[in-house]
Amino acid sequence: MARRAEVTVLPMAAPEDVSALAAAIAEGRIVPERIVAVLAKTEGNGCVNDFSRGLSVMALRGLLAAHLPPERLEALPMVMSGGTEGGLSPHWIIFQCLEDAAPGDGPALALASVVTRPLRPQEIGRPAQAALVREAVTEAIARAGIAGPADVHYVQVKCPLLTAARVAEAGGDVATDNMLKSMGLSRGASALGVALALGEIADLPEGAIGRDYGLWSGRASCSAGIELMTCEVVVMGQSADWGGPLRIAHGVMQDAIDAPAVAALLERAAPGAGLQGAAGKVRAVLAKAEASSHGAIRGLRHTMLDDSDISSTRHARGFVGGMLAGLTGRTDLFVSGGAEHQGPDGGGPVALIHEA
Amino acid sequence: MARRAEVTVLPMAAPEDVSALAAAIAEGRIVPERIVAVLAKTEGNGCVNDFSRGLSVMALRGLLAAHLPPERLEALPMVMSGGTEGGLSPHWIIFQCLEDAAPGDGPALALASVVTRPLRPQEIGRPAQAALVREAVTEAIARAGIAGPADVHYVQVKCPLLTAARVAEAGGDVATDNMLKSMGLSRGASALGVALALGEIADLPEGAIGRDYGLWSGRASCSAGIELMTCEVVVMGQSADWGGPLRIAHGVMQDAIDAPAVAALLERAAPGAGLQGAAGKVRAVLAKAEASSHGAIRGLRHTMLDDSDISSTRHARGFVGGMLAGLTGRTDLFVSGGAEHQGPDGGGPVALIHEA
Amino acid sequence: MARRAEVTVLPMAAPEDVSALAAAIAEGRIVPERIVAVLAKTEGNGCVNDFSRGLSVMALRGLLAAHLPPERLEALPMVMSGGTEGGLSPHWIIFQCLEDAAPGDGPALALASVVTRPLRPQEIGRPAQAALVREAVTEAIARAGIAGPADVHYVQVKCPLLTAARVAEAGGDVATDNMLKSMGLSRGASALGVALALGEIADLPEGAIGRDYGLWSGRASCSAGIELMTCEVVVMGQSADWGGPLRIAHGVMQDAIDAPAVAALLERAAPGAGLQGAAGKVRAVLAKAEASSHGAIRGLRHTMLDDSDISSTRHARGFVGGMLAGLTGRTDLFVSGGAEHQGPDGGGPVALIHEA
Amino acid sequence: MARRAEVTVLPMAAPEDVSALAAAIAEGRIVPERIVAVLAKTEGNGCVNDFSRGLSVMALRGLLAAHLPPERLEALPMVMSGGTEGGLSPHWIIFQCLEDAAPGDGPALALASVVTRPLRPQEIGRPAQAALVREAVTEAIARAGIAGPADVHYVQVKCPLLTAARVAEAGGDVATDNMLKSMGLSRGASALGVALALGEIADLPEGAIGRDYGLWSGRASCSAGIELMTCEVVVMGQSADWGGPLRIAHGVMQDAIDAPAVAALLERAAPGAGLQGAAGKVRAVLAKAEASSHGAIRGLRHTMLDDSDISSTRHARGFVGGMLAGLTGRTDLFVSGGAEHQGPDGGGPVALIHEA
Repeated sequence: MARRAEVTVLPMAAPEDVSALAAAIAEGRIVPERIVAVLAKTEGNGCVNDFSRGLSVMALRGLLAAHLPPERLEALPMVMSGGTEGGLSPHWIIFQCLEDAAPGDGPALALASVVTRPLRPQEIGRPAQAALVREAVTEAIARAGIAGPADVHYVQVKCPLLTAARVAEAGGDVATDNMLKSMGLSRGASALGVALALGEIADLPEGAIGRDYGLWSGRASCSAGIELMTCEVVVMGQSADWGGPLRIAHGVMQDAIDAPAVAALLERAAPGAGLQGAAGKVRAVLAKAEASSHGAIRGLRHTMLDDSDISSTRHARGFVGGMLAGLTGRTDLFVSGGAEHQGPDGGGPVALIHEA
Repeated sequence: MARRAEVTVLPMAAPEDVSALAAAIAEGRIVPERIVAVLAKTEGNGCVNDFSRGLSVMALRGLLAAHLPPERLEALPMVMSGGTEGGLSPHWIIFQCLEDAAPGDGPALALASVVTRPLRPQEIGRPAQAALVREAVTEAIARAGIAGPADVHYVQVKCPLLTAARVAEAGGDVATDNMLKSMGLSRGASALGVALALGEIADLPEGAIGRDYGLWSGRASCSAGIELMTCEVVVMGQSADWGGPLRIAHGVMQDAIDAPAVAALLERAAPGAGLQGAAGKVRAVLAKAEASSHGAIRGLRHTMLDDSDISSTRHARGFVGGMLAGLTGRTDLFVSGGAEHQGPDGGGPVALIHEA
Repeated sequence: MARRAEVTVLPMAAPEDVSALAAAIAEGRIVPERIVAVLAKTEGNGCVNDFSRGLSVMALRGLLAAHLPPERLEALPMVMSGGTEGGLSPHWIIFQCLEDAAPGDGPALALASVVTRPLRPQEIGRPAQAALVREAVTEAIARAGIAGPADVHYVQVKCPLLTAARVAEAGGDVATDNMLKSMGLSRGASALGVALALGEIADLPEGAIGRDYGLWSGRASCSAGIELMTCEVVVMGQSADWGGPLRIAHGVMQDAIDAPAVAALLERAAPGAGLQGAAGKVRAVLAKAEASSHGAIRGLRHTMLDDSDISSTRHARGFVGGMLAGLTGRTDLFVSGGAEHQGPDGGGPVALIHEA
Repeated sequence: MARRAEVTVLPMAAPEDVSALAAAIAEGRIVPERIVAVLAKTEGNGCVNDFSRGLSVMALRGLLAAHLPPERLEALPMVMSGGTEGGLSPHWIIFQCLEDAAPGDGPALALASVVTRPLRPQEIGRPAQAALVREAVTEAIARAGIAGPADVHYVQVKCPLLTAARVAEAGGDVATDNMLKSMGLSRGASALGVALALGEIADLPEGAIGRDYGLWSGRASCSAGIELMTCEVVVMGQSADWGGPLRIAHGVMQDAIDAPAVAALLERAAPGAGLQGAAGKVRAVLAKAEASSHGAIRGLRHTMLDDSDISSTRHARGFVGGMLAGLTGRTDLFVSGGAEHQGPDGGGPVALIHEA
């Protein structure tokens, strides 16, 4: 039999609520050994002191520990993205690789994950990280049986950040000694690693990370977390080796209100269905959002960067989330902030997993 | 000549920035004596301690004081709505009544304002307030030469709130002694007054204000402010007595992601233009947003009411703002929070002023 | 041998950081079977969406599960209080009951805990809860061998709150259907239960909970949590049955700047030591803080209740924390918010555990 | 007659509330022509989007415009410091220079202000700014008739910041293109200018501003504002040329809980009066507060720099404000955040104006 990707979105009543996942496992809808990656939108602030992410990870590990050996659990990518601003709904997305599709059924959604070696603090946010992510993406493409970079539609990366202890360990030879900034540099280095692997950029000029935002990937989505020193890379694309009903497509939002880019994706998934008409066929939406650094959207000033009460990432997620929810008719959307080198300034990549 | 409504949207670089308005006056595009009402979205938090509203009012009065006699300035409705969450853009909306349209040119956008007598603190948030607003709406309809309630599309009300001093003045005989709650009750009483005037509800049952949210107006938009004791009422509709190119239409969003309701309005303004295709014809968008009280949108949990760091009104404005911006292709939208009795729970009225 | 209370304050590098506790157990300084209660200040917002508390509890349970049978773990009071505003430092406080003191060594710090039966949702925030807490306090006094209410100096209560599900379970027959309000009513009912047990009030008049703030306990500290339906009660006092060097004393801050009340306690602990001179003898400081409901401190307006960006409880903890830190010379202080019926309006109880 | 400084603290019911000042003018207690400087603590967030400061300035100008010629009004230092976290109370502090003291009555509080020429954007946050402030301080010392730097106890500086427009005007040749950072650099350059003028440092090494925090002034308090391009400098000290009952003294808090440094000042003002015993003699308290950059206070971790919901400056003001309020017994204290090069890392200068 050929491989088949299964993508299951489950609700979360609180960050530590794994009851829907436990039920799905009990019913056999989800088979722990088959899980390739777990993504989740949790309801914290998505910034430095977001404890909802850690709580979800701890609860998820607690549940899966009964089903998986420790080394499998350790290597399983768990990407908790904090922030369900506006009407966004906290949810789990479980990616499984089953082996029950009829051969020749594809091309269909294909995916694989690779975890890099642990980074040294000196490497975080620097070209060395980009190189490691580049290799991991290339390896994951091969593992997934995806023909080449052109068939990749989305790459999720979870990468490390710098803490005071890690800065000290590196003897101060680090990209930045600011924890929050290190998150952005790490996301950016990962994104540029994806861009290199996918041929979106030819090479990585000296000093480009965190500076030359003209360089970006239209298919990378990166988030930084304190709990790992490796980079976890999940590649999604389409492959003739895989079967089943799921497909993936992507687009790039040029700015925070680029609804047409998203509508085009939805139209491809459900031609002629119109506004919110594709809802029944949409399995998951994965998008990045951020405030444009120049302080405007289509020439009109925004205030996200001047608000000292709410982080601009929270503003951007809620706003872009509202746009996506209006177009799709649902609120369990994986909208993630911090889009350094992920799409153009103020815009971001968006991927759609849907039924054929 | 017949009357003609002119609606001018102007940018605001900061709450106190009236330079665009000053320039428009200098150029003759705006004639101070012709101004019927000024609305603005300012960039504060839209809650109790939003000082951007007061700053805008003070700057606006400072500018207009050179052009208008004190009593005209005093009676001019100035509705500053705080909160430009997400990518929303701070802006002024100036409503003028000119007298240069050809007779028989309409029906076109028509508007008029009425200010009630000052309320006593005892009346705020209670049926007496609703009755006063009802009368004012009816009077404004007549002043505007609108044929009847069916031709009214939007009623903006600015109404007072209770402070500790006002509660004391009333000897404690007040709807609530909580300032924040009094804002909601005042908005709600105003909205139900509009609903009565427009025949959307037949009567106002005892104890309904702030409680029976099954009663609502689909055309009211109410905001409460500390600086007034009257209710300022601006009625907008269509009338054959008015001419010029501007039209108004309204819809009711049933929930926070009711994009189809908005798309239908835009389709009427620019048939066949498609997503963001009406942008050139849209003059202003006026909408209400709020978090549904039952904690979900189409069955999926939202977290707006559980976030102790960000007020739910801020979440709702950014999210609904994102949806509206995606549909219209612009971010200078008047999205206002606190929709008690203004549209169904979690939804809200939306009005569109556009060129024919 | 007689009983001896040991109180150990340990640092916490993050909510899930139990490394200091694990080390203390490994070194034998803390014996899991001897733990009577665990308190912690965690670094969340201390409000509805504070996930640092749940994370700390999950990490603590994970650690202790290797040392204690499930039923002991289940019955162990774990009171995580969110909010380390200003310079307050996150920390654990471990209370142990050892049996190694010489008889007749006291009177010394004595403590015991009692857990009530689970409350029905109908009982939360109502006199039934107060009655249950009253009984539990009385029983804990007996267990601790404290001679009587006069020798009790501090009662920590953790109590349940109402969620939508619990409101539904009760068929709507509840004290409030607002989750945040239910936290206040539950804390208040618990505090009045303590006041009854200690004879600070003679009876509980109908309708007093959450309303008549003239009724209060000067020795109760109550916090509400979503994770339990029982009330966990920890009583601390002095008893001749206990030995060892630790003592406890309490005072009542009349307002948020009542430094003299705290200075008097410190003077008793270390006579003549002066400002910050008692630091070496202080083992733990337990205090409540809140914004006065009348909006002023000694006649000067405060803005804590008007700030829609920061909860008043966060303001109050940081401010009172600063005062206490200035007096004691340390920042690992257990300052907890939400002081309904716990001390006078705007003030709160404060207890000092120190070496003789 | 000799000069006499008068310092009047007045309450503020809202940022735009100048009623107490108007009353004081009407009663003759404050003579507009005699005002040397106005300071105020207003209730905004004290960060980028704090509109309470602008609102207070606009209201104050509105009031004084009736009493002062435009050029006098323009040159009057108005230092609005946002942020009354915790129990701090919004207030005005009016500094007057009267000429009614008996000669030889001093030494007493002496003060004078100097406004520098407008800075070019290129100069902001750089040594050129420090040099200008240095000159202004020296000139103000002379104007005030203060014998020398040793008799200066407090220097308040209000200085400009960089906006996108100003960065563009300078063709990008600026210290930083980040608005928030430019505030810190500007405050830091001003503080080092004060340190140079007072001989607290001998020279200003290349690259020290915003970097070498071992260089600082123990008497500078600097705040940056968008509304000016000059630096407004107010020097306060003691001089034998001045008379009257007011005195000033200063200390340096070594960290955020350095209560002994403050207690020593209070003891000098009212020997033997004890905790809160000096309240009747204290006229004003002026202090800086900030979070230590190394993340700890006396070795215990603080969380101010990791809180993405509340700015560390807000945390620091509330916490240090609580300490100061506990020591003095009052809450109308001028505690200002952003203490770059103003006192040691995590600490700050504090000045006390009191009656002899």
